[in-house]
Amino acid sequence: MDALAVPSNPFFGVGPISDGSCDAQDMADKRAAFETWLIETYRKQDATGRDIGGYSAAELALSMHRGEPADSILRDMMRTIHGYFGFPASNRMAVGLGGGHTGFTVAVQHLMTLHDPAQQVFVDTPMPETSAAAACGFFRQSWATQIIEMCALARDGTTDALHFASSDGAIPDRAELERRGIRLFIGVGHETTGASTYTTAQMRGLLDWLAGDPENRHAILDATSLLGAMPWSEAMNAEVLARCCVFMPLQKAIGGVAGYWVASFTPQALAQIERNLQRPSWAIPRQQCLAVPTDPSRPLSGGRSVANGPFYDPVADRMTGGVINTYSLLAFAETTFALRRQRERIGPVEVLNARSMANRQRIEDWVASEPLFDFAVPEPERRGAAVTLLRVIDPEAGPHHARILAKAKQLLGHEGLVDQAGHRQPGLNAARYVNAFPGMPGDFRAWIGGIRPPEDIDALLSAFKFAWLEARAAVLAEG
Amino acid sequence: MDALAVPSNPFFGVGPISDGSCDAQDMADKRAAFETWLIETYRKQDATGRDIGGYSAAELALSMHRGEPADSILRDMMRTIHGYFGFPASNRMAVGLGGGHTGFTVAVQHLMTLHDPAQQVFVDTPMPETSAAAACGFFRQSWATQIIEMCALARDGTTDALHFASSDGAIPDRAELERRGIRLFIGVGHETTGASTYTTAQMRGLLDWLAGDPENRHAILDATSLLGAMPWSEAMNAEVLARCCVFMPLQKAIGGVAGYWVASFTPQALAQIERNLQRPSWAIPRQQCLAVPTDPSRPLSGGRSVANGPFYDPVADRMTGGVINTYSLLAFAETTFALRRQRERIGPVEVLNARSMANRQRIEDWVASEPLFDFAVPEPERRGAAVTLLRVIDPEAGPHHARILAKAKQLLGHEGLVDQAGHRQPGLNAARYVNAFPGMPGDFRAWIGGIRPPEDIDALLSAFKFAWLEARAAVLAEG
Repeated sequence: MDALAVPSNPFFGVGPISDGSCDAQDMADKRAAFETWLIETYRKQDATGRDIGGYSAAELALSMHRGEPADSILRDMMRTIHGYFGFPASNRMAVGLGGGHTGFTVAVQHLMTLHDPAQQVFVDTPMPETSAAAACGFFRQSWATQIIEMCALARDGTTDALHFASSDGAIPDRAELERRGIRLFIGVGHETTGASTYTTAQMRGLLDWLAGDPENRHAILDATSLLGAMPWSEAMNAEVLARCCVFMPLQKAIGGVAGYWVASFTPQALAQIERNLQRPSWAIPRQQCLAVPTDPSRPLSGGRSVANGPFYDPVADRMTGGVINTYSLLAFAETTFALRRQRERIGPVEVLNARSMANRQRIEDWVASEPLFDFAVPEPERRGAAVTLLRVIDPEAGPHHARILAKAKQLLGHEGLVDQAGHRQPGLNAARYVNAFPGMPGDFRAWIGGIRPPEDIDALLSAFKFAWLEARAAVLAEG
Repeated sequence: MDALAVPSNPFFGVGPISDGSCDAQDMADKRAAFETWLIETYRKQDATGRDIGGYSAAELALSMHRGEPADSILRDMMRTIHGYFGFPASNRMAVGLGGGHTGFTVAVQHLMTLHDPAQQVFVDTPMPETSAAAACGFFRQSWATQIIEMCALARDGTTDALHFASSDGAIPDRAELERRGIRLFIGVGHETTGASTYTTAQMRGLLDWLAGDPENRHAILDATSLLGAMPWSEAMNAEVLARCCVFMPLQKAIGGVAGYWVASFTPQALAQIERNLQRPSWAIPRQQCLAVPTDPSRPLSGGRSVANGPFYDPVADRMTGGVINTYSLLAFAETTFALRRQRERIGPVEVLNARSMANRQRIEDWVASEPLFDFAVPEPERRGAAVTLLRVIDPEAGPHHARILAKAKQLLGHEGLVDQAGHRQPGLNAARYVNAFPGMPGDFRAWIGGIRPPEDIDALLSAFKFAWLEARAAVLAEG
């Protein structure tokens, strides 16, 4: 058999996403460039304002997370995220420690309230534990469970205001949202366990519904895997970021370092939060609170305001408050540097979005010509443009599907295969960590988005097929 | 004036603590050693079990947080933290994303319950917003506020079971704890804004009270700044770690990377948590939950158990469950490496604790001979062995105290001073970020612990005095 082309790097996992480094040397070069950039960018001044040199990575590793240079590093990261992904100047962006789960928790703890009977809440997945919930995306179900517990266990708690979808990832049309009196929509923009997203028609309905009463209607979207892989028109992408509140960790679509979340809020949502917190529905731990006591000596009985919360205000280009707790200056600076590098290498976010859709189309074309493979998501428009989830349809595999799959992944990774005679076939190092989430109807899952060059897609898909066939031969020979 | 000796590195901040790197070259050497260690430690095997090379830092940066090598990296970090600091084999240690605030939140959300009328709770600080609370340590007051809100806003909420201390950092004697029927004690082992800790007598009382009924009496201690700077006898230090549940972020006393917390629990506390969660008092977001649904398809109505929670079990040397969400493999590996290096450079934790106390004594001796300086904490035994907080008592400063202090810090850092004639005195680069927490009664705050060599302490204190006198001269000349 001819030598197989393999992707420029084997990392398609849906944990940390690739920053485009191909190998150890490439990453060492990037690290050197990062450290040079740090020294050039973060400068020390003496008491006269004279420049007396730059901060090294070593110094930043030990610097405090308050004052300079921390304040500049934080502000630069927030400005870069906010600007690169095209958030509108009207929407402030909060930041804190934790992952996507924390971003979600922060968003719902603030935007939901039990004290406004008019606030009906829609969640884009079936009620957990119903039969419709069985094959739903893990994150949607996880958010639904958390919301139910929040409402059920709060002092004035009730789950009466919660509305669930009839199927996973569904958005009712505008009339239905209005008929039900929904005030808050909660959904996942691109669900990575099921690899699904919203159609243009769904999103159009949601946006029109929001536009119908921006003061009182809000949407929280999980954008963990959505930024840079938004599959709608450019105008609609911009409208989504303008009208919805979105949260995401740094380490996925943003391409930064694990351990932090950011979340953007419309001005109307911030006004709603300010109202909600006048009479809180549940305790919000300090590190998750978007509002700060207006009088530090009266943390219980004094007022609270989002005005001094941990937000980046793009109009003033400043943070309105500090981050709780200590963050890593290097992690934030690395995130800024990675996005700057991405803009240089790939272009503005519009290009990234377009590349994501082109890559998705490339997979569509390949699958259309490969009877062995199919998508886990049946409707083409609901297939996410970042994460793809493929099924193998192989009658010859018989009862050995799972064994073949496991061996195929060994061959795709570094483990390789050993046949019955003990002959060893080295690993291709073509695709590591391409596992489907447990319980999801797929075999190979890969984060592709707009980061990867088209030739990597071709190589990846060919490698999937090659590995499956080799593994099948090995398994069937074993009997 | 003679040249002033300055500390081997200027970082004494109470954000990230020093890992002992002196300068950029030293840190680059450490980084190279770390990357070599990574490759030697985390190895790839092919399908026959044959070693086929090590994981580079570049690969780990892109590897998934599930499976290998992630599982080994996580387990190694937990084993190293658990082992180095001397936690007993009986106590499991949980881990998650966030900082100290998240560790605190996790501990109280699980160990507190509103459904056991016998559970009276003692918090080691006065009730917030009372007059006694005015000058209390920030973290103690923050924890107290959060506990009140948790109890007040829960479905079956009441604050009737909460007992507050009459003064900050107070532990009632055993008889008093028993008289009040306390079942849960919540306190801060070494409070860094006020630089205070517990006396031996206080801790003896707490431990005896715990020993009196280990099944039903529990203590949660904030150990953010306590590990490696425990100021009691070796036997008592071990007893504290055995009988109390303690939480801490990675980036302080542990010397790791910001963005994560760990927390240890006694077996009896885990049993209590298991009981509490049969009837939860409040919603615990999934990423903070120590118990996992026993049936994934029944997240609401099914059972929950700590048996599969995100714990390190030292007896089996394994994680009983996974971490929510994505963590940085490199951050965890760096934390392991830093602790291994610390053991090589400084020795076991007993040596570190002893050095902390010796360093604290060195400061005592110096302050005793320097009328210009005094401690913010009046009682010697309550002074923490990690963080020191000094006041300047200078009648000559008159109304210019704050101005002199600001200029002294410029001189201690890199900014330096400029006198009226425009003459510039370069910064000493002796001590950056030595600010007291806002509202706390001190002028210079420094993290010292057992990491710093004694000569650094001498140099730091001399630099404080030198800087104050120079700054005073400059300010008084300005008039």
